[in-house]
Amino acid sequence: MKVVGKRVKRIDAVSKVTGEAKYVDDMKFEGMLYAKIKRSPYPHAKILNIDTSKAEALPGVEAVITGKDFPNTTGLYMADRTVFAIDKVRYIGDAVAAVAAESEEIAEKALELIEVEYEELPALFDPIEAMKEDAPLIHENLHEYDHAVFIHPVPHTNISEHFKLRKGDVEKGFKEADYIIEDEFSVPMVHHVPLETHTAIAKMSLDGQLEVISSCQSPFAVRQLLGHVFDIPLNKITVKAEYIGGGFGGKAGLQIEPMVVALAMTVPGRYIRLTYTREEEFQAAVNRQGLRAKYKSGVRKDGKIVAQEITYIWDAGAYNDYGVNIVKTAGYSCSGPYEIENVKADSYCVYTNHPVGCAYRGFGMCEIHWGIEQHMDNIAEKLGLSPVEIRKINGLKDGSLTVTNERLQDVGYIKCVERVAELLELDKKDAPSKPYKVRGKGIAGAYKGPSTPPAAASSAIIYLLEDGTVNLQVSATDIGQGSHTALAQIAAEELGIDVDKIHVSVPNTDYTPYEWQTVGSRTTYSTGNAVIRAARDLKRQLLEYAAEDFNVNIEDLYIEDGFIYSKKDKNLKKDIKDYALGLVYSDGSGRGGPVIGKGIFIPEGVTNLDPETGQGRPVNHWTFGVHGAEVEVDLETGEVDVIKMVSVFDVGRVINPDTCEGQLEGGLIQGMGTALMEEMILKDGKLLNPSFVDYKIPTAMDCPEIITEFVETPLKDGPYGARGIGEPAMIPAAPAIANAVYDAIGVRITSLPITAEKVLKAIKEKRANEEKEKNNK
Amino acid sequence: MKVVGKRVKRIDAVSKVTGEAKYVDDMKFEGMLYAKIKRSPYPHAKILNIDTSKAEALPGVEAVITGKDFPNTTGLYMADRTVFAIDKVRYIGDAVAAVAAESEEIAEKALELIEVEYEELPALFDPIEAMKEDAPLIHENLHEYDHAVFIHPVPHTNISEHFKLRKGDVEKGFKEADYIIEDEFSVPMVHHVPLETHTAIAKMSLDGQLEVISSCQSPFAVRQLLGHVFDIPLNKITVKAEYIGGGFGGKAGLQIEPMVVALAMTVPGRYIRLTYTREEEFQAAVNRQGLRAKYKSGVRKDGKIVAQEITYIWDAGAYNDYGVNIVKTAGYSCSGPYEIENVKADSYCVYTNHPVGCAYRGFGMCEIHWGIEQHMDNIAEKLGLSPVEIRKINGLKDGSLTVTNERLQDVGYIKCVERVAELLELDKKDAPSKPYKVRGKGIAGAYKGPSTPPAAASSAIIYLLEDGTVNLQVSATDIGQGSHTALAQIAAEELGIDVDKIHVSVPNTDYTPYEWQTVGSRTTYSTGNAVIRAARDLKRQLLEYAAEDFNVNIEDLYIEDGFIYSKKDKNLKKDIKDYALGLVYSDGSGRGGPVIGKGIFIPEGVTNLDPETGQGRPVNHWTFGVHGAEVEVDLETGEVDVIKMVSVFDVGRVINPDTCEGQLEGGLIQGMGTALMEEMILKDGKLLNPSFVDYKIPTAMDCPEIITEFVETPLKDGPYGARGIGEPAMIPAAPAIANAVYDAIGVRITSLPITAEKVLKAIKEKRANEEKEKNNK
Repeated sequence: MKVVGKRVKRIDAVSKVTGEAKYVDDMKFEGMLYAKIKRSPYPHAKILNIDTSKAEALPGVEAVITGKDFPNTTGLYMADRTVFAIDKVRYIGDAVAAVAAESEEIAEKALELIEVEYEELPALFDPIEAMKEDAPLIHENLHEYDHAVFIHPVPHTNISEHFKLRKGDVEKGFKEADYIIEDEFSVPMVHHVPLETHTAIAKMSLDGQLEVISSCQSPFAVRQLLGHVFDIPLNKITVKAEYIGGGFGGKAGLQIEPMVVALAMTVPGRYIRLTYTREEEFQAAVNRQGLRAKYKSGVRKDGKIVAQEITYIWDAGAYNDYGVNIVKTAGYSCSGPYEIENVKADSYCVYTNHPVGCAYRGFGMCEIHWGIEQHMDNIAEKLGLSPVEIRKINGLKDGSLTVTNERLQDVGYIKCVERVAELLELDKKDAPSKPYKVRGKGIAGAYKGPSTPPAAASSAIIYLLEDGTVNLQVSATDIGQGSHTALAQIAAEELGIDVDKIHVSVPNTDYTPYEWQTVGSRTTYSTGNAVIRAARDLKRQLLEYAAEDFNVNIEDLYIEDGFIYSKKDKNLKKDIKDYALGLVYSDGSGRGGPVIGKGIFIPEGVTNLDPETGQGRPVNHWTFGVHGAEVEVDLETGEVDVIKMVSVFDVGRVINPDTCEGQLEGGLIQGMGTALMEEMILKDGKLLNPSFVDYKIPTAMDCPEIITEFVETPLKDGPYGARGIGEPAMIPAAPAIANAVYDAIGVRITSLPITAEKVLKAIKEKRANEEKEKNNK
Repeated sequence: MKVVGKRVKRIDAVSKVTGEAKYVDDMKFEGMLYAKIKRSPYPHAKILNIDTSKAEALPGVEAVITGKDFPNTTGLYMADRTVFAIDKVRYIGDAVAAVAAESEEIAEKALELIEVEYEELPALFDPIEAMKEDAPLIHENLHEYDHAVFIHPVPHTNISEHFKLRKGDVEKGFKEADYIIEDEFSVPMVHHVPLETHTAIAKMSLDGQLEVISSCQSPFAVRQLLGHVFDIPLNKITVKAEYIGGGFGGKAGLQIEPMVVALAMTVPGRYIRLTYTREEEFQAAVNRQGLRAKYKSGVRKDGKIVAQEITYIWDAGAYNDYGVNIVKTAGYSCSGPYEIENVKADSYCVYTNHPVGCAYRGFGMCEIHWGIEQHMDNIAEKLGLSPVEIRKINGLKDGSLTVTNERLQDVGYIKCVERVAELLELDKKDAPSKPYKVRGKGIAGAYKGPSTPPAAASSAIIYLLEDGTVNLQVSATDIGQGSHTALAQIAAEELGIDVDKIHVSVPNTDYTPYEWQTVGSRTTYSTGNAVIRAARDLKRQLLEYAAEDFNVNIEDLYIEDGFIYSKKDKNLKKDIKDYALGLVYSDGSGRGGPVIGKGIFIPEGVTNLDPETGQGRPVNHWTFGVHGAEVEVDLETGEVDVIKMVSVFDVGRVINPDTCEGQLEGGLIQGMGTALMEEMILKDGKLLNPSFVDYKIPTAMDCPEIITEFVETPLKDGPYGARGIGEPAMIPAAPAIANAVYDAIGVRITSLPITAEKVLKAIKEKRANEEKEKNNK
């Protein structure tokens, strides 16, 4: 390999480092209007009346719109919301009206002039309460909605999804077990915290062409859903996504775009920009769902888990479009990277009057592995096994059957477990830095399949230019992960040219070919495969021309360094650029035309899951890996310092070590943030910490020593064997830290985050218990 | 046909009529700088020194550059110029330096501060003088230049091209003739007069990506030539062409772009705009070359022309990049739409110190037909034949041999001649509106082949969207001719969907596929063919999916109104959108991927021409047609009023009657402008009329009654048989008017334009001669 596997500099490095990269909220257009959103102060209330007349009368206000103006429903997996709330508001921050004005100041003033009359309703903040049969309904009229792109069964209670996983005979399994071990864990809502808040610009031209420039992950999903919401044919919609200041799932599907598009349709001919303030971003944009998880495992003395019963109850907030699918994903991945013969799992997606849940790096996997991986350590401890041993005994291996009875091959999980233990020196206890501190080490594993529903197709176009350089067209967004660099490397490798000769265009739905979404760790895998196919299609054409030109067999020809060579005739050498516009004969006549490579890809093998048992093949492949952590706990304050983190993942094939390591490092640190700091503190539905002052995320100063390594067990249909790594890289960080904390102080923190308060309280309780036990003796 | 041949509304109608369409000179970017060009006041001079220090010191000036900073040469057909003049200036208006400043005012002030020391040289304004062996050379160092995309032999005299056409034995032919008829005609330089002057915006990003937004006809030619001029790989260059306010050939190839790009490279990170003032446009932008034409025809008594000797001497101005190719085109089309057994023609492209010649609607054909078609009428008069008869006898027909010995088929010329004579009632003399006026009628024919050199390839991409609408990608520019509408119709017809379901994207070299140039009446033909192929490629994929889906033969399936039907099974009906992302089976698994149609096209059959005889096949096909005019001449003032114009062209197939008629009407009126009004009045190289006050073009008020009709002799490889019409529509307008003037007053005006002064002078001379003859009798 000449390019794949090399540390190629990110193609967007200079523009990002110099600040030249324009993000959506840097963009201004002549005559642009500014949008602001009027939001609900109540978690649950009837809207009795909205009076916009005073706001409309304010000079500089160009439009004031409410839900009634655009009653169509929207949703990617389930249509459960309208552009603005119409009859009811369902969380604090729910949008009820929007203003477009000549300045942000006027727009804000207009918001104050909009008078909304509410009638408060009893609100539900606990999903377990909300699940009860007699709980008031948060959505009463879902059956009236339509226009879902994916049809999800209409819920008639506050449970929007109940995913059932049934493998083997769980009762029989528990009977065979020597021990039954039960645990409960919980995860609060956390926020994506993209550095660029949600921003979108829209313009409806006078001839009916809608242009949207959005800080979004998936321009094609935005286009498709906008088409549904507003009944606009897709050829009349253009969605552009250029530089994006972070997504992490929170900019997947359709987010704030319909609100600004509704304004654009009201004031055609003007650009309108909607940019969330940081406070709005925290309160009103989407977040990661809360989870209550229960595990009951039946284990044999030899360490083998023979039965497992799991309950996942998700606090998915006021709208569950994305939630229903996350909950399903958690269901079919319920036991983590382990082979268990008998499994019963129930995963519930529940409406509450909390802010709206959405995809978040890991798509439910961070949340469930928080419990799974601590539960594994608890089982190991019970049996007197090490964390490595319990994972080696139960871990998924070649030939294993997953919880959906998929037979696996090429599984590198155990290798990752072993290597992390080695790199972390798991068995070695390091001395603490102070006498009042203690150290501990822990590991945690994870698996995750990339999201690959039937529409999850990719495509790529490669144009060979007249000088032998190429333009690569894809619609995957580079939201920071460096995927455009990896895709350029793949194209360069296939074409036999230098990566510098490849230009990757930013997505624009008018121009770049279809891509489902940039989510689910699927870009390098799915788009990468499309790029390979496009490159091979282009190469084939070039070799055909050369074979005709020189009257040789196509099989004897190959491309290297931008030239076509013959294996048999050393004198045959032709610059690929000479065929860029087809074949020109010596008499001046020509044949063919411009050389364009086309590649399309849709993952094969995925099937529908049985609605009663969840059995089937939900994803095309799985990525496995392990994080390890060494922590130091201050016994006087309860503070946890992460000293070192180790990560080994089986990525199938490393396309670019720099960006691949970047994914692991980013995942570790983001995971560490959720482990130690991050939590949306909600009181009666109100977010108490909607700012960086009160909602902490890790900074460079918080980063521990990091060691990363890769295992490479090639994936059969991955590009050069590559597997998705974006999300998996984050998943086991928090449980690894929790296991390390347990190792240090013998106390298990079951609810995220592991705050100093919780740790100190747990230490004190533990000491009190020890005292009590001592006294009892 | 459901869409082709229908009066479909132009797809850009609303945006143009409402003024929403943004032209390049409407565009502003944050922090944009303004460029201005310092120009030579001398027609021919050495540059001794340029002192830019004072200009550089002016606050607000960001860059001052001269020729020495960017010494590479540029050219599409012949590299004979640098970005700015370096050692010499060669015409009044030649660019010597450029400024980029924070405002236009500062830039203009800076121009005044640039001090250029010149040493005047003897200047050449008459091409016949310039051709002389002892004439001073306008270009001394062409042999040092390189980097031409198309290699033209390096001229060592002021003759940059001498195209030789030798068919048969012209001496023998003259011996067989009963009469020898000789004529001379001349054509002055005229200007394209686009409503939008030349404008281009450039930015060189900090990571080396060059972006150019230009009011240009051919973004791919701009990209390729910029790559050459500045040694930039093509994948690092983006050229965008959106709405274009007229081109007519003057925005073909590379025009003002290198000057603004040179500034952009000097001040990276800033957008810089260069917009010509109207005066600059007239003086310094390109124009249509001047021509001196001599015809000597040997004619038999029966009207058959048996020999013809032609000399074309072109005043191509100071730089002849485009000129050499126009002169070649005139050479291989030298005799017009007539079959003559023995032809000898010499077409000379000559450097003078006049403004720069370039492509202009017709590419030399307007200029040569001005003489050819008057010469034909002179021959007819000599033999006592009617204008129709002389053309029927000699006109090209099925089986005719052209001057390059190409055997023609499917020629509709004579039909056009007959139909124009009929519609104009050529034999009927109408009464004048005033006693001091006289009326006359005239016709003129024309032929023109579309420009189809080996690189003249086209391509198209069609994306099928998820709702069954489509996005069509082409890089042909719609410079006003309505081609995007015609291409949408072709795609709609092929795909079996409504034209409203098709979105045509504006060209952007990053995204849209290769297109050589939007010149030479080639778009509907060449790009149209690429669109047909892309549509068929897309359809094939859909039908393959349907055949597999329903387990039927692909041959039994067809697409209509966006649905796939079976010829055999009436129940089989499938929306094409259902396969937009590939084939999804009932178990949820999928195959294929996004449906993308690709079409590439390069005209076949064109060959190199023999350098000694000009024999070969220069173009893929020819378009024939005839204009007729009725005029009224004021005998007291010499003023010519065009009362009526008639046009009948063989377009092979009318794709859209509205836009096709628009081409004929536009061609007639632009031709009428050159016939009666337009002329660049040059005195010692200085343009005396660089404004709309002194350079008149026809307005709506000047338009006569117009009748247009089409003959449809399908072209074998044309899209539905269509031939190019953009340029041909203009060619015979001026000679038709001249022939009508002759018919009215018996006086032949041999030099364009037919001004009142010339007519009155000719009338007076004629009267004087008649008096003299009467007196002599």
